[in-house]
Amino acid sequence: MKRTATRLADSRELIYYDERDDAVRDAVDRRELPPPPATPQLRHDPLTDEWVAVAAHRQSRTFLPPANECPLCPSTPDRLTEIPDTDYDVVVFENRFPSFSQRDAWLDIVTLPALNPIRAAQGRCEVVCFTADHDASFATLTPGRVRTVLDVLADRTATLATIPEVEQVFCFENRGIEIGVTLHHPHGQIYAYPFLAPRTRAMLAAARAHADRTGGRHLFADVLAAERSAGERVVVSNEHWTAFVPAAARWPFEVIVAPHRPAADLPSLTDEERDAFGPLYLEVLRRLDGLFGVPMPYVSAWHQAPVRTGRDLSYLHLQLFSIRRAPGKLKYLAGSESAMGVFVNDIAPEHAARLLREADAT
Amino acid sequence: MKRTATRLADSRELIYYDERDDAVRDAVDRRELPPPPATPQLRHDPLTDEWVAVAAHRQSRTFLPPANECPLCPSTPDRLTEIPDTDYDVVVFENRFPSFSQRDAWLDIVTLPALNPIRAAQGRCEVVCFTADHDASFATLTPGRVRTVLDVLADRTATLATIPEVEQVFCFENRGIEIGVTLHHPHGQIYAYPFLAPRTRAMLAAARAHADRTGGRHLFADVLAAERSAGERVVVSNEHWTAFVPAAARWPFEVIVAPHRPAADLPSLTDEERDAFGPLYLEVLRRLDGLFGVPMPYVSAWHQAPVRTGRDLSYLHLQLFSIRRAPGKLKYLAGSESAMGVFVNDIAPEHAARLLREADAT
Repeated sequence: MKRTATRLADSRELIYYDERDDAVRDAVDRRELPPPPATPQLRHDPLTDEWVAVAAHRQSRTFLPPANECPLCPSTPDRLTEIPDTDYDVVVFENRFPSFSQRDAWLDIVTLPALNPIRAAQGRCEVVCFTADHDASFATLTPGRVRTVLDVLADRTATLATIPEVEQVFCFENRGIEIGVTLHHPHGQIYAYPFLAPRTRAMLAAARAHADRTGGRHLFADVLAAERSAGERVVVSNEHWTAFVPAAARWPFEVIVAPHRPAADLPSLTDEERDAFGPLYLEVLRRLDGLFGVPMPYVSAWHQAPVRTGRDLSYLHLQLFSIRRAPGKLKYLAGSESAMGVFVNDIAPEHAARLLREADAT
Repeated sequence: MKRTATRLADSRELIYYDERDDAVRDAVDRRELPPPPATPQLRHDPLTDEWVAVAAHRQSRTFLPPANECPLCPSTPDRLTEIPDTDYDVVVFENRFPSFSQRDAWLDIVTLPALNPIRAAQGRCEVVCFTADHDASFATLTPGRVRTVLDVLADRTATLATIPEVEQVFCFENRGIEIGVTLHHPHGQIYAYPFLAPRTRAMLAAARAHADRTGGRHLFADVLAAERSAGERVVVSNEHWTAFVPAAARWPFEVIVAPHRPAADLPSLTDEERDAFGPLYLEVLRRLDGLFGVPMPYVSAWHQAPVRTGRDLSYLHLQLFSIRRAPGKLKYLAGSESAMGVFVNDIAPEHAARLLREADAT
């Protein structure tokens, strides 16, 4: 894999990741662009002890452009996009409308109570384009390209962890307008947060309590072993990875994909594990799309060890979930989920696993 | 207010709350109904230490029926609904497709790892019809009817707290198909949970830490005082209540409505506070609908003290929020929010408060 870093017209970083080592990426971004927006605010919610990012500039972000105006396609002589070159394999660049960034902060516009500390939302938001093919989807990538994407995410994780303010690197893909995707071109995102996410805090606390209770046993490893032994919720597995529906799934269709060997984060995956991931994950995605014969909206989220804490308690895994519960029906987060955090799942996890095992995987 | 309890054909409880003390409610439910579904399952998610309800029977619940088949309208000689009488003021009944109930449990169908304790989802799910008028909305109720609804919620809170398994009573309204509402008739819901909700646990932990840090000060009271003093995020206030946008709002439009006197829960509100709530809350709802000139989807959620713990740390408040961020745009919970719990708000809370103050309130 060859890595070529450059800058866009407004100084944002862009990195080509090429599968061929002789790729030359010297195209220049010839657009006239305004400077990147100021770094958003982080505000502390005292009632829940959680940080919320306030990124007012995002209201004007690009929203469902027609395919011939896609900013994630390669540039052509007639049309300049976010990617200066006329082709690419995988490309990563700083989000033009970031929730977290390293620009000048925007902090002085309000009078906030002392109970609401405010700071700059330092960190990084990146876009990861999986392919130059606008009409592809992650599920139609080749296993080789999935391997490249995995290597890219590992590389970005290691690189972003060196930003002094970054506490956690979160790689994810949102797919489908039903989940709010504003650009159809197949792409993922990376959020490098300057704090620990609430779910990560909850997972670390649970892992720590389990270790204390059991003389040092690893919670996720015990859960994975139990699921592999029970088998009832396993969707598919190979030598290095198992995909299973968690026994307490929150979403109609939710799958955890985890390596058999405890790995704290993406950079620590071995060559063999990286090669084995693509075929298995692609099968899971095809089964998901095969459930109802329509492309499923989903969130695909990599949970990995934070930068500075909890590494020994962390176990890398991908959490994939869809809000579609039936062909014409979505799972909405209404009062119980949104206001209280209490999830009600209308599909038994064992049933979801069976449906996924029986779904068309071609 | 007159309270008349009865039973539906399948033994579910229904209670008429009448504003006139001479109302007679003796209509009998003449429908043929199958017995209520078994009580759903509660499964413990070991990775996050949270409970998830699995209610598989809800997949078949009533979904956006045409207006002439609305199950929440009063019955007519030609058509029998969930409400046997031909009229009502406010009526409460057990949800036909409950996530929590007191029926026989359904626990024996799966092999769950020892790490996933399972138990019956005991508790109660109730529907609260605000008016017999199918085409009304909460915002079009009279202040007198809002007072009745508040009295009903207080009565249900006190009653449901006596169920031995119930730890918390959560009263809320979901409004709008954008948020997943499946019945348009104006109604709210009550979930009596057999555990503390994740948000409630977070709020109690934050309140406890604040009290420890400050020699016993009340966190919410301090936040409310600071917001009333700052003024910048206050939408409207009267003698007994203030409505403000929280400084770390998670949603494009989010308003907290709180009484000035610390009250732990709905039953402990005074007569004067109950009377003063309606005019203020109705104004907030009208301003919300006035923002873009279209009815706004929203969740309206009452946070109150749990049944058995944390009463001294709790402060009753209503959390109202909308996912609509612009006329054609919704806020979606995608990767950062749904998988990590990290919210990014695209509208500055001060700006949202100003828009609400300037919105048409007629």
